[in-house]
Amino acid sequence: MESIIWHPCSQMKDYEKNPIIRVKKAKGVYLFDEKGNSYIDGISSWWVNLFGHSNERINNAIKNQLEVLEQVIFAGFTHDKALELSDKLIKLVPKNLKKIFFAEIGSSAVEIALKMSYHYFKNIGLKSKKKFVYLENGYHGETFGALSVMGEPLYKKAYDDILIKNIMVEFPNCYRCPFGKTRENCNVECFEFMKKTLEQHVEEVAAVIVEPLVQFAGGFKMYPAKYLSKLRELTKKLNIHLILDEIATGFGRTGTMFALEQACIKPDFLCLSKGLTSGYLPLSLTLTTDEVYYAFYDDYEKQKSFLHSHSYDGNALACAAACETLNIFADENVLENNKKKYTLTKQLIEKYFKDLDCVGEIRSAGFISAIEFVKDRYTKEPFDASLRFGFKIYRKALEKGVLLRNLGDLMYFLPPYVINESEIEKLVKSAYFATKEVMDENIC
Amino acid sequence: MESIIWHPCSQMKDYEKNPIIRVKKAKGVYLFDEKGNSYIDGISSWWVNLFGHSNERINNAIKNQLEVLEQVIFAGFTHDKALELSDKLIKLVPKNLKKIFFAEIGSSAVEIALKMSYHYFKNIGLKSKKKFVYLENGYHGETFGALSVMGEPLYKKAYDDILIKNIMVEFPNCYRCPFGKTRENCNVECFEFMKKTLEQHVEEVAAVIVEPLVQFAGGFKMYPAKYLSKLRELTKKLNIHLILDEIATGFGRTGTMFALEQACIKPDFLCLSKGLTSGYLPLSLTLTTDEVYYAFYDDYEKQKSFLHSHSYDGNALACAAACETLNIFADENVLENNKKKYTLTKQLIEKYFKDLDCVGEIRSAGFISAIEFVKDRYTKEPFDASLRFGFKIYRKALEKGVLLRNLGDLMYFLPPYVINESEIEKLVKSAYFATKEVMDENIC
Repeated sequence: MESIIWHPCSQMKDYEKNPIIRVKKAKGVYLFDEKGNSYIDGISSWWVNLFGHSNERINNAIKNQLEVLEQVIFAGFTHDKALELSDKLIKLVPKNLKKIFFAEIGSSAVEIALKMSYHYFKNIGLKSKKKFVYLENGYHGETFGALSVMGEPLYKKAYDDILIKNIMVEFPNCYRCPFGKTRENCNVECFEFMKKTLEQHVEEVAAVIVEPLVQFAGGFKMYPAKYLSKLRELTKKLNIHLILDEIATGFGRTGTMFALEQACIKPDFLCLSKGLTSGYLPLSLTLTTDEVYYAFYDDYEKQKSFLHSHSYDGNALACAAACETLNIFADENVLENNKKKYTLTKQLIEKYFKDLDCVGEIRSAGFISAIEFVKDRYTKEPFDASLRFGFKIYRKALEKGVLLRNLGDLMYFLPPYVINESEIEKLVKSAYFATKEVMDENIC
Repeated sequence: MESIIWHPCSQMKDYEKNPIIRVKKAKGVYLFDEKGNSYIDGISSWWVNLFGHSNERINNAIKNQLEVLEQVIFAGFTHDKALELSDKLIKLVPKNLKKIFFAEIGSSAVEIALKMSYHYFKNIGLKSKKKFVYLENGYHGETFGALSVMGEPLYKKAYDDILIKNIMVEFPNCYRCPFGKTRENCNVECFEFMKKTLEQHVEEVAAVIVEPLVQFAGGFKMYPAKYLSKLRELTKKLNIHLILDEIATGFGRTGTMFALEQACIKPDFLCLSKGLTSGYLPLSLTLTTDEVYYAFYDDYEKQKSFLHSHSYDGNALACAAACETLNIFADENVLENNKKKYTLTKQLIEKYFKDLDCVGEIRSAGFISAIEFVKDRYTKEPFDASLRFGFKIYRKALEKGVLLRNLGDLMYFLPPYVINESEIEKLVKSAYFATKEVMDENIC
């Protein structure tokens, strides 16, 4: 039967050859399909799951919340779980972040930060600040505002004509460094691009938005913390906001609770989502400073309010899942325990992949590892896109019972934190054999 | 203690005088706060709740789903509850709607429709169609794309300078008809505005977006079905898409399952959310035709795909709540049973309010009733906004144990469908006495 559902991020015609997999059940790191196959969820179901599927603690937290309150209007009203979540979270972020705005999805958290930043400068009389600066290759969501700061053309180019124009800056391209440096001998020479742009456009720029340390959807490009500390220093000097999009990096993914810790920086806005609810329910947060907050705080008649809203802002079930997520971090020494696991993941990937001819670079940051495949590892020439080399590995790996989604010719490992050592081994080995098979079928 | 949470749709300073209410529990139509007060939720917690808080059937549906699957990546994968929901829903909408795209929030459903419409015309070679037409006074969400078709300046004007420009058309202003007509003797003369605009801009317009029958956030403005049938006829003739935003009107709110039924029209896009999960969890859908779908369906290399995605698209817990919502509609004869209740609501409002000097118009459509307060009911002159007449009634009503949020000087009644007759009476009477008290305190 032809499907009624139009799936996201898909060319639906691809499913003629590679049918959609119908998941009947999921438990821990495993997905089970209708045909009796199981898959290790090596991508945490699109980077959201932390503690496994159908996790008993999160399940119970939601069940208990169902008996109390599922949802209440969040204008004029609040509830225990939103308050508990705020109290817990505010202790985990830089001290300058004092206020939390609730929404449902990452794109909204980003759009809220953009709107707040622009509106802040307007409220304090700096009306020329109407532009946002973003990095080439960056991804912050696909609603119109988020797309206007999208640096990855794949998702953006079809809509270029109907988006507001912001300012893109060359990204820190460490694998193909334009200055001929390597990760080992780099002094973030590429920050010059950002510096020049910000100095040139200082009057019109409200904020810079970046994914700290790792550009996820742009191909798991990883760059040094020093870039971020320079960026914070310069934006502060120039009176430009810094928006950190930690939607994907947050909640331990890069090794620290938030990636910003590795650069010791305090942003003006911090966007969170994905892992916030352990991958259970949509919930997003935009954190900001008292300075921003009080630029909107005035008598109603002054019309300075930030009126943004969505119906399910502060959803109580999602807040309950998020509170329990933070409880698990506190109770189970997650960040410390993760170290051994992600170190093993990295070591195994190195062991199996480093000598393959088609491996350009192996990158890792905490519980993220990625392999960029190339046609020629010396010249770093990529494969012809029409080969769909990465996509073929993804499909092969699925046949072997592991879900490792590709991004072009990049494959990434981003499993739930509850994965154990033998599952890590299976993940890496399956990826290796899948890669070998695709290599054998292609010229590589 | 000063709050960490920055609430939506709020001037936070207002809470100094009127503190945020902390809800401890909710059951059926009642909210219970920390001080032991109870409130009838007369606005269904921002227009989302249908069958009461902590509803046993929905609770059980979510609990059962927690044991099976909470969330799985929706690219390349699907699950039972998404399929069940699609199968059930497609039977309830016009036959031309064949495909369903899943997202989380209403704003996204709208942005997806806008992007799809523009992208459809681009894919078939009509690249000049880059604009959207929207109604003055309309509301479709507050992300950048949704804001670009926002007709209500309150939420938009701060951001005018950083939004793409679309085309606004005068709305069907039935209460203050520019043609001097009344609801009884109207022949939708005001459609002329739309006709002129569409004919003038036909080459550049991709789609028209409207909330059918009722403009919610724009002040519960209600207009005749005939406007919609004319709009459908003209847009079809001019090769312009019609996007119906039934995020608020859908799922029985206007008396029929969808408002479009009252105009007998088939849109090109239908956006749904809010009541879809009975007010439990964020979930939104954009439905469209095969014609649209197949303009994107091609070999991957052709780069015609619609790549939009959010992490929690197709969330299984939300889909389970939505399936059970549709089960309740089917099992409990909801639409029929609602009639008696909303007729009573309307009658009681007429009875209590119609002779009050400050009542300009009483409007109703199914389970929505609204009262527009004015300074002079003969000239229809509004109150001075700084009086905050409606806001004062909202606060007074809260003191009487009923939650009836105002929009400017408009108060609306939009309770969960499970409200009973005595609760309806309490709702209306409390609103009446609240209004009387505010009148006594002000010149009215």
